Amino acid sequence: MMKLYNVEVSGNCYKVRLLLSLLNVDCEIVPIDIANREQKSPSYLKRNPLGEIPVLEDGELTLRDSQAILVYLARKYGGDTWLPSKPSEMALVMQWLFTACNEIARGPMDARFHYKFKQNLDIEKAHEKSKSILTMINLRLANRDWLELNRATIADIACFPYIALAHEGKISLDPYPHVQKWITNIKELPNFISMPGLE
Amino acid sequence: MMKLYNVEVSGNCYKVRLLLSLLNVDCEIVPIDIANREQKSPSYLKRNPLGEIPVLEDGELTLRDSQAILVYLARKYGGDTWLPSKPSEMALVMQWLFTACNEIARGPMDARFHYKFKQNLDIEKAHEKSKSILTMINLRLANRDWLELNRATIADIACFPYIALAHEGKISLDPYPHVQKWITNIKELPNFISMPGLE
Repeated sequence: MMKLYNVEVSGNCYKVRLLLSLLNVDCEIVPIDIANREQKSPSYLKRNPLGEIPVLEDGELTLRDSQAILVYLARKYGGDTWLPSKPSEMALVMQWLFTACNEIARGPMDARFHYKFKQNLDIEKAHEKSKSILTMINLRLANRDWLELNRATIADIACFPYIALAHEGKISLDPYPHVQKWITNIKELPNFISMPGLE
Repeated sequence: MMKLYNVEVSGNCYKVRLLLSLLNVDCEIVPIDIANREQKSPSYLKRNPLGEIPVLEDGELTLRDSQAILVYLARKYGGDTWLPSKPSEMALVMQWLFTACNEIARGPMDARFHYKFKQNLDIEKAHEKSKSILTMINLRLANRDWLELNRATIADIACFPYIALAHEGKISLDPYPHVQKWITNIKELPNFISMPGLE
């Protein structure tokens, strides 16, 4: 069986657990003790030399990045539903995985790191970037239910956690009603699962 | 014909031009006048509401992220060579596009922004992140010529520009001999093209 090295409070781990649930795919969840820096231990660094979670193992395969894991699971278990194989559609969905990795990470994810995990970083810049990307996504969702292709894809799954957890970075979603509606859409997907802080 | 909205000094635009050349695919290059903030003009913001370059247009398709554009070009024109369709191999390559978007962007790319384009950011953190990712990649390349799959893929193309431009962010590659050898490997690819600052 696949193994996911996991931390419950990580939005990046959660997006993988969420897709596993939506795909109805079994996976062993292996908790990593970040309080004792297990992710920096020699045995873990063999899995991921960057010392970060999550990591997915599937037989000989070891994958170290949450968005890359979404790509793997979607292509392996999801047919063309969650990540299409047609180049134009694949790239449209992929855009949002890079938005998750760039603008959302440098915005609401960093803001949450700062307030929830006491990370020393430029919180003003994180709030500024949050405003910019949330404004853009709110506009995008004004006349559609999903980020791309008029259906739920890994574009939505990749962007969802740190936007839905924005309040933990002291960012209000009040100015972004279409983003709030989209969060509800995702929560209503069959087999949706939650994480601490989302309710 | 496809159109690439382009800025010569951008490493993100360059990686797209490089893959186009390696694939021997024709594309109209449309220069964007960043000195006059053309990327923030209403007509450009219709292409990319984030106001960033590059953007690729191919008929009805508009793509706004350099790594997503690499995915599109590789899958549309590269067969299985530059980005394989097998889920495990696709995900292994994709990992590095997220490394380009995360660790390399927050490391050597940010350092170059700071020194070359006078961006106000935490340069110490950018240098610290550069050291961490370059150390990891140097170790990775100690016993292989390419980042993944024993051949050149878009993993290498995505990571290459801002590592090869590290000196413009006052980062020396002297401590990373395997990274230097990998840079040479890429420069020796058939149809390789360069950009300002790379020589």
